[in-house]
Amino acid sequence: MPYFISGVTADHQNLIARTPAQFKSMNDIDVKTRHRVMAIDPAGHTVTVRDLQTGHEYLEGYTRLLISTGAEAFVPPIEGTELEGVFTLRRLTDSLRIKRYLADARPRRAVIVGAGPIGMEMCESFATLGLEVTVMDLAGQVMPYMSPDMAERVQARIEEEGVSCLLEQSVTAIAGDGGAVRGVVTSNGEIKADLVLLAIGVRPVSGIAADAGLELGARGAIRVDEQMRTTGEDIFAAGDCATTTHTITGRQVWLPLGSTSRKQGRACADNMFGGETRFAGVQGTSVVKCFDLTVGRTGLGEAEATEAGFSPAVISIEAESLHQYYPGRGTMNLKLIADGGSGRLLGAEVVGQMSSVADKRLDVLAVAIDAGMTADHLQYLDLAYAPPYSTSVDIPVIAGNIMTGKIRGMECGCGPHGLD
Amino acid sequence: MPYFISGVTADHQNLIARTPAQFKSMNDIDVKTRHRVMAIDPAGHTVTVRDLQTGHEYLEGYTRLLISTGAEAFVPPIEGTELEGVFTLRRLTDSLRIKRYLADARPRRAVIVGAGPIGMEMCESFATLGLEVTVMDLAGQVMPYMSPDMAERVQARIEEEGVSCLLEQSVTAIAGDGGAVRGVVTSNGEIKADLVLLAIGVRPVSGIAADAGLELGARGAIRVDEQMRTTGEDIFAAGDCATTTHTITGRQVWLPLGSTSRKQGRACADNMFGGETRFAGVQGTSVVKCFDLTVGRTGLGEAEATEAGFSPAVISIEAESLHQYYPGRGTMNLKLIADGGSGRLLGAEVVGQMSSVADKRLDVLAVAIDAGMTADHLQYLDLAYAPPYSTSVDIPVIAGNIMTGKIRGMECGCGPHGLD
Repeated sequence: MPYFISGVTADHQNLIARTPAQFKSMNDIDVKTRHRVMAIDPAGHTVTVRDLQTGHEYLEGYTRLLISTGAEAFVPPIEGTELEGVFTLRRLTDSLRIKRYLADARPRRAVIVGAGPIGMEMCESFATLGLEVTVMDLAGQVMPYMSPDMAERVQARIEEEGVSCLLEQSVTAIAGDGGAVRGVVTSNGEIKADLVLLAIGVRPVSGIAADAGLELGARGAIRVDEQMRTTGEDIFAAGDCATTTHTITGRQVWLPLGSTSRKQGRACADNMFGGETRFAGVQGTSVVKCFDLTVGRTGLGEAEATEAGFSPAVISIEAESLHQYYPGRGTMNLKLIADGGSGRLLGAEVVGQMSSVADKRLDVLAVAIDAGMTADHLQYLDLAYAPPYSTSVDIPVIAGNIMTGKIRGMECGCGPHGLD
Repeated sequence: MPYFISGVTADHQNLIARTPAQFKSMNDIDVKTRHRVMAIDPAGHTVTVRDLQTGHEYLEGYTRLLISTGAEAFVPPIEGTELEGVFTLRRLTDSLRIKRYLADARPRRAVIVGAGPIGMEMCESFATLGLEVTVMDLAGQVMPYMSPDMAERVQARIEEEGVSCLLEQSVTAIAGDGGAVRGVVTSNGEIKADLVLLAIGVRPVSGIAADAGLELGARGAIRVDEQMRTTGEDIFAAGDCATTTHTITGRQVWLPLGSTSRKQGRACADNMFGGETRFAGVQGTSVVKCFDLTVGRTGLGEAEATEAGFSPAVISIEAESLHQYYPGRGTMNLKLIADGGSGRLLGAEVVGQMSSVADKRLDVLAVAIDAGMTADHLQYLDLAYAPPYSTSVDIPVIAGNIMTGKIRGMECGCGPHGLD
């Protein structure tokens, strides 16, 4: 949606993965839109459905039920969130509303509340459209799930693009004039705004599950096991409404992401039809584009690793994606976290130019982490080398070299620029 | 060097990783150029050295010796290879000679003998310079180490660029006029050429090792163990002159590549100074750019998998790297090979547009193969998703889905375009 708002994606129809008509013609699946499930009766294996167009309520029986209610944008309980020009960005209709407002009201100053991934994407989106952009966060850094030094690189880049960052800011109200937004009120005063985007996060839509007596788990999401079964008989849940397991810590977590939803849905469908598919969980991989920067992470950060009982060893490197003699290379910063005792890889963070293909180098590390590889093993990965694609020793391998040196307590190591 | 020849890389100095002077100033290492080691005396721990400028010969003692003699281009024993305008491409001086010949002789027709990776890179290089290019090979396909259907995609692409492919051609001689090349003689007649590049392959430089009584191994390379030790006491070998182990088959192989040389050199150096580093080997990962196509492979091909005792299951998919709504996506073809019994991943081949980032998706699969993952596991990799980087289910995961369906004998699967 940020790309639809900025015009990179021209038509919002392209954002609709499949229409009810396509479900019907391709798979003979009936999709009832404008119908709301009001209640679930686990004992009776029925749901109460209201047809929103007619108001008619009726019971519908099920053999097995999937709850895939997703998540919704969090709106803080402060004054002014209903003012014209105040938005969240979660549903396709939100982006249509924002686009219409941009065209009709021609706002000049946008304030984005929340410097997480949606906030970062929307900084780029609004700046591309020529708006004066301010992003604010309660935290002392942008991208609160990145480590502070990596977040500083992102902040420096968005400030270069003219975005103002106001950190450690608590929003106490949205101020308006005649029903339209005028500014964002913080403990430090009022910031003028013609458009306010609340990008503070999302919450699982799990009320209907709780009402039916199903157990909730991490962050209030619907608790499911590895087969996506809830605590209710024949009731499954998948997607942004459901919990999952962190594969490194083994803990129950709620990490709603589209890539995870798709995998959960697939495993869930198999199990609902009698399969025995297990979805082991996630390791918290994510990536976001912010102007020409790629910002991503996978696995545990340093603090999380310590908290989970590991003794993290951490290295940070800056490396070029290609040798100097080949054009089009990019610079990327990589932070790698391993257990200092066993050498097991635990996590990675990247901030790099788009041209550095930091996203896919993060993927390489994500697979190595998933496999339980050690830093020593990382040194010998047989990755694809030719000058248009990488340096002869690619960045994950260099990171393995340096981490191994660090863990072994060696005084010198072979860095991206050769032997120190 | 193909990029230096075509002008993508402007200065050949940039192709020199480090000069003798840099070795001295950075690491206090003496590099003696224009000195040839004539013989090794393993019992006496000495080498006989000839200073090529003075002709003086002397003995030099060693505690431990590294043989890193590399490989050299293979020149077939046919008439005419010494003619002006006939080249190999292995050393930096080869590329300087080719560049000088291009400038001075202004050749119009280039014939490349050998349709392997160097041949493919040079098709692009010569075509970029405006030459009429013909590539020929003894095999019935280009890129003989790719499977035939994948090779056909490469052939179609280079033919689109105006390159003529002559396959199943045996070169019997190079024909010349007045000392300069005139054409390439095959069993089917003479092909006119003003420039001939012999890109038939390389051979390990192992004669000096054999003369010293060291054991040779696969393809005549110097046999080494996992610690890069030859069969001679205190003598190590690393790089293109040395054997290695295929990590999937466990067999001794010779697969000379720059990325492998670097890893061998690092492990070897550690062991020469008392370390206990093991280099487990390679899985045959490689990639080459051919015009705007990325062509790569890792692990075993179908025939190799069968030969190694597996029962390979093979799937081929064509997929887009990004969702339709985001610009800049590319198409890639992926062939995935797994053991039909255990589901263990064995190999992958890719042919994709540069924009599809097929090289890094190959790397993701290379790590999964290295880790001994199954196709089932591949389905649940937690890869980094955002619209500028991938589809919400990325191509390796889709391949895991389809391969799992194939192995389980399911009738339907979820392909790149949704549920079939």
